[in-house]
Amino acid sequence: MGPFASRINFNTGVLEQYDAKVVRKLSDMASMFANDQAYKQAVSAEDELVYEVFEKHVPEEEGQLAHAVTVIYPGKIGDEYFMTKGHFHTKPNTAELYLCIKGRGGIIMSNEQGKVSYLEMVPGSMVYVAPYWSHRTVNTSDEEFAFLAIYPADAGHDYGSIEQTGFPKLVIDKNGKTELIDNPKWNKS
Amino acid sequence: MGPFASRINFNTGVLEQYDAKVVRKLSDMASMFANDQAYKQAVSAEDELVYEVFEKHVPEEEGQLAHAVTVIYPGKIGDEYFMTKGHFHTKPNTAELYLCIKGRGGIIMSNEQGKVSYLEMVPGSMVYVAPYWSHRTVNTSDEEFAFLAIYPADAGHDYGSIEQTGFPKLVIDKNGKTELIDNPKWNKS
Repeated sequence: MGPFASRINFNTGVLEQYDAKVVRKLSDMASMFANDQAYKQAVSAEDELVYEVFEKHVPEEEGQLAHAVTVIYPGKIGDEYFMTKGHFHTKPNTAELYLCIKGRGGIIMSNEQGKVSYLEMVPGSMVYVAPYWSHRTVNTSDEEFAFLAIYPADAGHDYGSIEQTGFPKLVIDKNGKTELIDNPKWNKS
Repeated sequence: MGPFASRINFNTGVLEQYDAKVVRKLSDMASMFANDQAYKQAVSAEDELVYEVFEKHVPEEEGQLAHAVTVIYPGKIGDEYFMTKGHFHTKPNTAELYLCIKGRGGIIMSNEQGKVSYLEMVPGSMVYVAPYWSHRTVNTSDEEFAFLAIYPADAGHDYGSIEQTGFPKLVIDKNGKTELIDNPKWNKS
């Protein structure tokens, strides 16, 4: 393979050249929000778009760098903000770097010892997700939240453990302010 | 280690939190420009700043992602634009991703078969330097050219072979237009 180029529009957050798009609607996120009743109502009213991932393709090999722009749309289920599924890396010693392009949001991370870190993101913010930390991004604003993510192409995505246990904390809107509260579904075992 | 944050100012191109700064002046770049006489005159007149690299520290281990913002200042030696030293990776199967933050420039890349690729960069441009390709960035504008670079933290930098052979092509200003011409110093052996 040779070098290649693409371009992020810093005003719109759009990746102007991409090879594949992952689309996540509410119906793709069953059991991931804390308020089951609010989720059921929302998904039956309108199966809204929660986020899209615009990916460039590189070989899934050690030494290559996967990179993608994610756009999380504004919205909430109950008081919990629209968010990504979140994942660990299958190859757990791999980091991930985030750069916020547009909007406002945050990233919640946790490690296997149950430690939690939450970092806010505005345009220009970079967050380094250290190896062994799971991570989920959250749109805490009323507009699109767009960011670039870069990770070793052989890192792999482990969604399963997050789907079962979630994160130790939920990121919620409380009277217009972002707060972290304990996740009642979180399984410590 | 845990997660950490930093921030790039999209207006100025400055990385607001960094751990180390690499400074390259003209005197650090002996024999890298094609016009030796113009170089000697320039460095004796004023040892100008050519570029600075603002780095965040991460462990130099597989799975970690080194990241840094480079600012190349505007200038020329003869008709050759100010540029970085350029390098191969010591671990040659490692890629590098560039994102232009500010200004205008380009990246010249070559592989061991002597193939050359040159890609222009404006704010938002991403360039994927494929594994096994050497790379050097060039400021083709009259203002600061700033970009984020991300690479596997164990990639390593091999400057030596570039210092001896350069790149097959020079990136020059010809009557206000950017052109690539053969590098007379390039050693094909």
